[in-house]
Amino acid sequence: MRVSQKAITRLSQYRDILHRFKEYGSQWIYSCDLAAAMGSTAAQVRKDFSIFAIPGKKKVGYEIDTLIKHINTHLQKDSQHTAILAGLSLSGVSLIKEQLLAAQGISIAAAFDAGTAKAAAKSSLAGVPVMPLDKMIEFVTTHSIKLGIIAATDGSAQRILDLMAMAGIRGVLNLAPTDLKSPRNCVVNSVNLVREFEKMVYFAAQPDGGPQGA
Amino acid sequence: MRVSQKAITRLSQYRDILHRFKEYGSQWIYSCDLAAAMGSTAAQVRKDFSIFAIPGKKKVGYEIDTLIKHINTHLQKDSQHTAILAGLSLSGVSLIKEQLLAAQGISIAAAFDAGTAKAAAKSSLAGVPVMPLDKMIEFVTTHSIKLGIIAATDGSAQRILDLMAMAGIRGVLNLAPTDLKSPRNCVVNSVNLVREFEKMVYFAAQPDGGPQGA
Repeated sequence: MRVSQKAITRLSQYRDILHRFKEYGSQWIYSCDLAAAMGSTAAQVRKDFSIFAIPGKKKVGYEIDTLIKHINTHLQKDSQHTAILAGLSLSGVSLIKEQLLAAQGISIAAAFDAGTAKAAAKSSLAGVPVMPLDKMIEFVTTHSIKLGIIAATDGSAQRILDLMAMAGIRGVLNLAPTDLKSPRNCVVNSVNLVREFEKMVYFAAQPDGGPQGA
Repeated sequence: MRVSQKAITRLSQYRDILHRFKEYGSQWIYSCDLAAAMGSTAAQVRKDFSIFAIPGKKKVGYEIDTLIKHINTHLQKDSQHTAILAGLSLSGVSLIKEQLLAAQGISIAAAFDAGTAKAAAKSSLAGVPVMPLDKMIEFVTTHSIKLGIIAATDGSAQRILDLMAMAGIRGVLNLAPTDLKSPRNCVVNSVNLVREFEKMVYFAAQPDGGPQGA
């Protein structure tokens, strides 16, 4: 069964909401309550959970702990993820220093940069080793790393992606403001802040507010 | 006619592709060539442009300059956008310093932070004035600003959003890793990097790669 990107995003939204209900002392939750917290419908909630074969009970709804466990298994949150980051733009450096990903079980094993001066000057960044880009393939293959983050802002993103794919990386989060051609056997998820800003401007200017189906 | 978020994202992707074709010397483009560059279908391209009443000609296709102009008008790229940024996390500071948005005609008029020490210590950042959060409403109303960016990582995002909406801001790009309740009359577009990473991990682990319909 193939699922949509939106269904995956909703799953992680459900999980955050479930954690909040749990903090308030709830053990069970009805699909309608979860739907209300999501701004969605009970039918949508049940449909989402049925795709993932997550079971609910007629009278009491879903057990919150079981639901969180199922969602985490589906999103592979049970295992620690290790990624490399390439392209030491300011935002790349912030991402490492802020440890937003580390707090969610995603560790960055090393950072790579094409600017030899930058890579040479910083031998580590918040405990993460920094190396020149031409050491990437060796590092990735030695450590069997399958995930990467591109944070370059200097136009080198496609070259970095091709190198990552060559090294055996299977999934890339691309934060560079550039559309990239995905190599075979590598999934690329691009987040383009300029585009997200433009989208927001467009919908903010509509007389009836938000987008269709949002 | 209400349009989807995806249609708006595609429009800005089309524009980037059109700029590349133009650089290579093309003046006209067929919907099938645009579709090939997008990894989409000609029918989808024509459908997208028909929603926006963008005209094409049978034998020669679309004139690239006209198309770019139409897309920019629809995305309101003709006008300079002014926003404020609140929450001086490291990534908020990077966003200002990197001037990624400035390069696309989006200027940040001021930055606000709740940490009085931080706001007091930095009276400006790459030319952008930095002020304490309690000056925000006054600044926004005085300068009639309608757009905001939230870059807080400390749990203050909802409070910042409520303040922004109170000040008359109509559209917000939320970069805080938190789901926010949108106030009335304010569109919120949230970008959650942890969630985007998780989504990528999920699809990278599927035997057939990418998501349905991506």
